[in-house]
Amino acid sequence: MKLSNYLIATLKEAPSDAETTSHQLMVRAGMIRKIAAGVYNFLPTGLRVFRKVENIIREEMDKAGAIEVMMPFVTPADLWNKSGRGEIYGKELLRFKDRADRDFCLGPTHEEVVTDMVDREVKSYKNLPITIYQIQPKFRDEIRPRFGVMRAREFTMKDAYSFDINEAGAEKSYINMFNAYKSIFDRCGLTYKAVEADSGNIGGSFSHEFMVLAETGEDLVLSCDKCDFAANVETTSIKENTSTVTGGTDLISANEISTPKMTSVDDIANFLKVSSGDIVKTLVLESDDDLIAVLIRGDHDLSLTKLKKFLSVNFLDFASEEVLKKRNIVKGFCGPIDLDIKIYSDNAIKLMTNFITGSNKLDFHSQGVNHDRDFPVESFGDFREAVDGDLCPCDDCVGTLSSTRGIEVGHVFKLGTKYSESMNATFADQDGKEKNYYMGCYGIGVGRVVAAAVEQNNDENGIRFPIALAPFQIVIISTDKKEGESLLKAREVYDFLLNLSYDVAIDDRNENPGVKFKDAELLGIPLQLRIGPKSLAKGLVEFKNRLSGEIIEIDKDNLELIKEKIDELLR
Amino acid sequence: MKLSNYLIATLKEAPSDAETTSHQLMVRAGMIRKIAAGVYNFLPTGLRVFRKVENIIREEMDKAGAIEVMMPFVTPADLWNKSGRGEIYGKELLRFKDRADRDFCLGPTHEEVVTDMVDREVKSYKNLPITIYQIQPKFRDEIRPRFGVMRAREFTMKDAYSFDINEAGAEKSYINMFNAYKSIFDRCGLTYKAVEADSGNIGGSFSHEFMVLAETGEDLVLSCDKCDFAANVETTSIKENTSTVTGGTDLISANEISTPKMTSVDDIANFLKVSSGDIVKTLVLESDDDLIAVLIRGDHDLSLTKLKKFLSVNFLDFASEEVLKKRNIVKGFCGPIDLDIKIYSDNAIKLMTNFITGSNKLDFHSQGVNHDRDFPVESFGDFREAVDGDLCPCDDCVGTLSSTRGIEVGHVFKLGTKYSESMNATFADQDGKEKNYYMGCYGIGVGRVVAAAVEQNNDENGIRFPIALAPFQIVIISTDKKEGESLLKAREVYDFLLNLSYDVAIDDRNENPGVKFKDAELLGIPLQLRIGPKSLAKGLVEFKNRLSGEIIEIDKDNLELIKEKIDELLR
Repeated sequence: MKLSNYLIATLKEAPSDAETTSHQLMVRAGMIRKIAAGVYNFLPTGLRVFRKVENIIREEMDKAGAIEVMMPFVTPADLWNKSGRGEIYGKELLRFKDRADRDFCLGPTHEEVVTDMVDREVKSYKNLPITIYQIQPKFRDEIRPRFGVMRAREFTMKDAYSFDINEAGAEKSYINMFNAYKSIFDRCGLTYKAVEADSGNIGGSFSHEFMVLAETGEDLVLSCDKCDFAANVETTSIKENTSTVTGGTDLISANEISTPKMTSVDDIANFLKVSSGDIVKTLVLESDDDLIAVLIRGDHDLSLTKLKKFLSVNFLDFASEEVLKKRNIVKGFCGPIDLDIKIYSDNAIKLMTNFITGSNKLDFHSQGVNHDRDFPVESFGDFREAVDGDLCPCDDCVGTLSSTRGIEVGHVFKLGTKYSESMNATFADQDGKEKNYYMGCYGIGVGRVVAAAVEQNNDENGIRFPIALAPFQIVIISTDKKEGESLLKAREVYDFLLNLSYDVAIDDRNENPGVKFKDAELLGIPLQLRIGPKSLAKGLVEFKNRLSGEIIEIDKDNLELIKEKIDELLR
Repeated sequence: MKLSNYLIATLKEAPSDAETTSHQLMVRAGMIRKIAAGVYNFLPTGLRVFRKVENIIREEMDKAGAIEVMMPFVTPADLWNKSGRGEIYGKELLRFKDRADRDFCLGPTHEEVVTDMVDREVKSYKNLPITIYQIQPKFRDEIRPRFGVMRAREFTMKDAYSFDINEAGAEKSYINMFNAYKSIFDRCGLTYKAVEADSGNIGGSFSHEFMVLAETGEDLVLSCDKCDFAANVETTSIKENTSTVTGGTDLISANEISTPKMTSVDDIANFLKVSSGDIVKTLVLESDDDLIAVLIRGDHDLSLTKLKKFLSVNFLDFASEEVLKKRNIVKGFCGPIDLDIKIYSDNAIKLMTNFITGSNKLDFHSQGVNHDRDFPVESFGDFREAVDGDLCPCDDCVGTLSSTRGIEVGHVFKLGTKYSESMNATFADQDGKEKNYYMGCYGIGVGRVVAAAVEQNNDENGIRFPIALAPFQIVIISTDKKEGESLLKAREVYDFLLNLSYDVAIDDRNENPGVKFKDAELLGIPLQLRIGPKSLAKGLVEFKNRLSGEIIEIDKDNLELIKEKIDELLR
């Protein structure tokens, strides 16, 4: 590519709404531009990287025997009614009417469409197993689109769906896709971890997330120091440590204390000179039917995911201030005593006595509170997020968990017969009977892989793309703006490498060398060949490795050596 | 590809709503399936053909120096308000609100988005010219989606946009894209014609359509028998033949005649024993402001496109029965005398005297009608569609026009400054002044190219794909269902050809040979290698060319010869 005829849209400053490194760098490098909240243009350099990821995904899917199709992004609402998911999905599912007043949705995922397709096209066990995939745009009307293309509303997804005659077959298909995902992320040159995860809106019994590890990742991953266990914090189940009993065995009587304006756990702990682990938070949430309360130890965080699963509800979120007011619940001072809603309590509280809670009066807390005696507990359960130092939940394992941060780039699900049952999708089995398909589904966000690669690989000068994903692998930079020996030599090397099918660009723009170097670094091009009058006079050209920082000089006329050097670095 | 692990979804019957050959064949061949009106799944074989077209387009766009980007299909409504096109587009532009009540449209085309993009990213004449393209899904809420993917509502388009500093540059960019289009359709193996066309909703001064010629095509193309002229009937301007004066020079007086229930030109012509060319139709239309009438000779058809352009209105269509009633206009008996709306008259009428029209009374017509004397004419103009035998409109050309039918697969437009002015998109010119871009836009419907290829290339057995577009170029058919010598040999040849990167499939399904032959023919696979016990016993395999119908036998062990034969046929 001749950059003089190309669109290099680098910027000095990132926009003020770009919070994460990858969002900032992708905008600065001219890879993406926002045109509305969560809706982006991919500019030329961004699309080159996107296409490299897309091609790796397609090749590995084909190699794994998955069959490519293309489903529409405009999907009829009746399919969503059939599966029953139209209701569950909520406002993320963007609904609209066409000119004939028929109901449609922008597809956020395609379980319904593909189940309907396979049900219509596949008749018999003889045609199974089958795994179908597509690489296609989706829309999810996220309430808080953010982090650039990492959590966009419109995005491109590779979504695959497997159909099997039984559980054992589904297991095999799942493992096949799991392995294909490993090949994909390996080829992308990313450092990642496959972890157990929650199935969320997709449903099903079991799932794994592929996490690209990065300090700035949105997700928290917990891994055991003794066994292979690794899971998203959302879903890591907790083996409570029974040695952490607090409060003593003698129950004291509960009494109220004045705590003016102290609404946070830290305020109370400082004021009463206790640790935050001696305090119990009373969190009030709205669920499908009514309000509920959940008690969580002061130094722990609620896992909405776990509680939602435990309660088997479709909707669960913190109650708004308005709702609390309506029910006379005092925000910041809520406690379990005399609270007129069902109370769930985290297992960690089971071991506590004489603890501190809100008192349901403004500016007052209660001390010496005990469950059962002072308030009824609907149910104890595992409702909190795991933290560093928690015990590994695996049977017989005595390891402890430690956390790393990651970015979810892929997710594989065992669905069982969830969709085939609700949509009545069947095949004729060997015994002649109609049976429901055992399904799996498997997604990768293409743009998100690009963003995660940037989040994981960058420095103060910009992006440090893995070789496989860089917009160009090599850029030939003429450091002389004028037509002359440098530009001629640059063109000669460029033509030579292009002829050999290298992924090469020539920076022949009418710009200063500093601008060219900076753009190459920002864009994360792994190799730079710098050609200028000074080194040419010595019969040399300069070769810079973006990843190692190393700069070497080589004979300007030894094109074969240049090629060898490139091959060596690309290997 | 092993067809035993693939999804071959051929059908014996086409669905009842499939009117055209390509729609019927694409559904029967299992290439596409409807999931809602104008919304389709591409099944595996259909997608393979689709991707071949897509790849040819991408390669030729890149070769022509166009730069690929990816814009979203969800586009903010404010861009459409800025260009003013939101109003003009009407209901084809599907509008909706997101969860935050902001207005969006599903992009039917991307002039607005790309003009905004280039305006933001390109600052100076130094970065021009530039041609941007994408291959991306679109949505047009067509009132009558039909013909399968030929006129779908959701479809994939390659849309390109050129930006130049002046008219001369824009002309060059236009020619560059025009030539790229020729390369694309040449490589697809299609018979086509580039013709002058109307610019429709896209606007601009000048455009060409690329028409794939097929007897069943929706469009009528007129070409001159003496010069290079070729145009869509919608836009072909007419040089009226002055030798066709009818009615004589003596004006007779107008009188009414009873014509009970005769509402068609043919009825009247038969009844009065005159030719349909002696009758004048009075057509009533609704435009932006009010009703208008247009007079067209009985044997001619109105060109809505020409009249719309002449009147410079955004909306023009035949008045509904309801509207006619409200204005006391008698449907089927409308005439120009005493008609209280503006009357436009086609140039062909200018030459007529003493003609027959409706009388504005139920069951009556008027004879001996003459313009000016009997009714005022607002304006004469070229309002009719050209027909076979019309004179070539080119200056100094004495040729006559003849018609062929075609399918529009590509359209190139000169836009001038239409969008850059309305959206205030400018660059800094060499003199330092901000100027509007000169633009062009260039579209190809990817799915439509596939459908047009089918429409042009088929026979009683199915599709006869050009080699470049076939889902597979070669299929190895084992005619023996059982595991045995035939299947072993088939696998051997398959592996041999696959290793050499041929685009080959093996039909190893547990099906009868008849089914396999029929599916191969239906799917339009150009070459079949048939391997069965009978010919194997003679040391031979059979080779069938789908396009020529020729079957030859070759030595079963001479794999090199098989390869040579394939190369020869693919050449």
